[in-house]
Amino acid sequence: MVATSRATRQYLYSKDKELLLQRMRKIEGQARGIHRMIEDDRYCPEIIQQLTALSHAADEVSLLLLQDHIQGCVAEAIRGEHGEPMIRELMGVIRRAARR
Amino acid sequence: MVATSRATRQYLYSKDKELLLQRMRKIEGQARGIHRMIEDDRYCPEIIQQLTALSHAADEVSLLLLQDHIQGCVAEAIRGEHGEPMIRELMGVIRRAARR
Amino acid sequence: MVATSRATRQYLYSKDKELLLQRMRKIEGQARGIHRMIEDDRYCPEIIQQLTALSHAADEVSLLLLQDHIQGCVAEAIRGEHGEPMIRELMGVIRRAARR
Amino acid sequence: MVATSRATRQYLYSKDKELLLQRMRKIEGQARGIHRMIEDDRYCPEIIQQLTALSHAADEVSLLLLQDHIQGCVAEAIRGEHGEPMIRELMGVIRRAARR
Repeated sequence: MVATSRATRQYLYSKDKELLLQRMRKIEGQARGIHRMIEDDRYCPEIIQQLTALSHAADEVSLLLLQDHIQGCVAEAIRGEHGEPMIRELMGVIRRAARR
Repeated sequence: MVATSRATRQYLYSKDKELLLQRMRKIEGQARGIHRMIEDDRYCPEIIQQLTALSHAADEVSLLLLQDHIQGCVAEAIRGEHGEPMIRELMGVIRRAARR
Repeated sequence: MVATSRATRQYLYSKDKELLLQRMRKIEGQARGIHRMIEDDRYCPEIIQQLTALSHAADEVSLLLLQDHIQGCVAEAIRGEHGEPMIRELMGVIRRAARR
Repeated sequence: MVATSRATRQYLYSKDKELLLQRMRKIEGQARGIHRMIEDDRYCPEIIQQLTALSHAADEVSLLLLQDHIQGCVAEAIRGEHGEPMIRELMGVIRRAARR
């Protein structure tokens, strides 16, 4: 893990923060809805479709955070001429998110 | 959508139903935890890692439901010699879940 | 691995066989084209876009073969009342293809 | 598309170039091998496994190129204080590669 100045992150974050929190509340609601579908013995393909939507929604939040991260911490590290460890960490994040 | 006998589904379902409900409650908890991480301005790569875990957990529930569906509705349709529309629907489910 | 009658597979296969062979020749050509792009020092995002297209094309062939497999071997096994090992194998194939 | 100095790219590229070319030749060989498996009516799950391996290999080349791109063009743009359009383009590349 690379040390980063919290202040910088907070600044970038804040512009999207309410949007990100909203999306997480929506995902929580989707999980609750799918729980109910399983309780009600709903048709499997319908439930799988909702799980796919939930999974996409989570990936979308990841992409927004990734963009914030690159515009914030990674760009700052590159400008400070210590970008290499940050880029290595970034590649790890992308690789795990891409499930490779 | 293909009509299926609810009774068959319910039978297959029930053996895994409590497990599936548990997993959905866990995913709901993960969503709440990530909401809190964003509120607390946690480091982006840490949040992305948790989102990746949530997304994997949802995909895992999809795979369990897909197996139930194939062992139940799809197998029943094939034995009843009307498997073709069911297999076409199944391929649509797999294709969407695979994001292609 | 589950033993299957080659005859059945061949029958199902044959309707799509020329299409599948064509697609594999196209993928081979895409690989050659990307090799050339790298030799020519083309812009990374352009090369990545072509690699993404190649990867999608391979996944598309997988989905066609998966459908053939379910309509052929899996359906035959289910009708013969020995579907369970075949469905377990099928889930393994789907799981690996989905990279989970 | 963002204009970039070809010289910088070439420099970064060259360290991995032979590796990348080797991998593309291997992928071309994999495509040829799968073509032969289809001709020979091999068992679908075996062919799908090889297609999955080919698809992974292509994604691996994408990740190597993505790293080169971030260390080269993106870092250079950020240091030159015109990182924003480059980061937007980068997010598009990641998004398409992640199939979202």
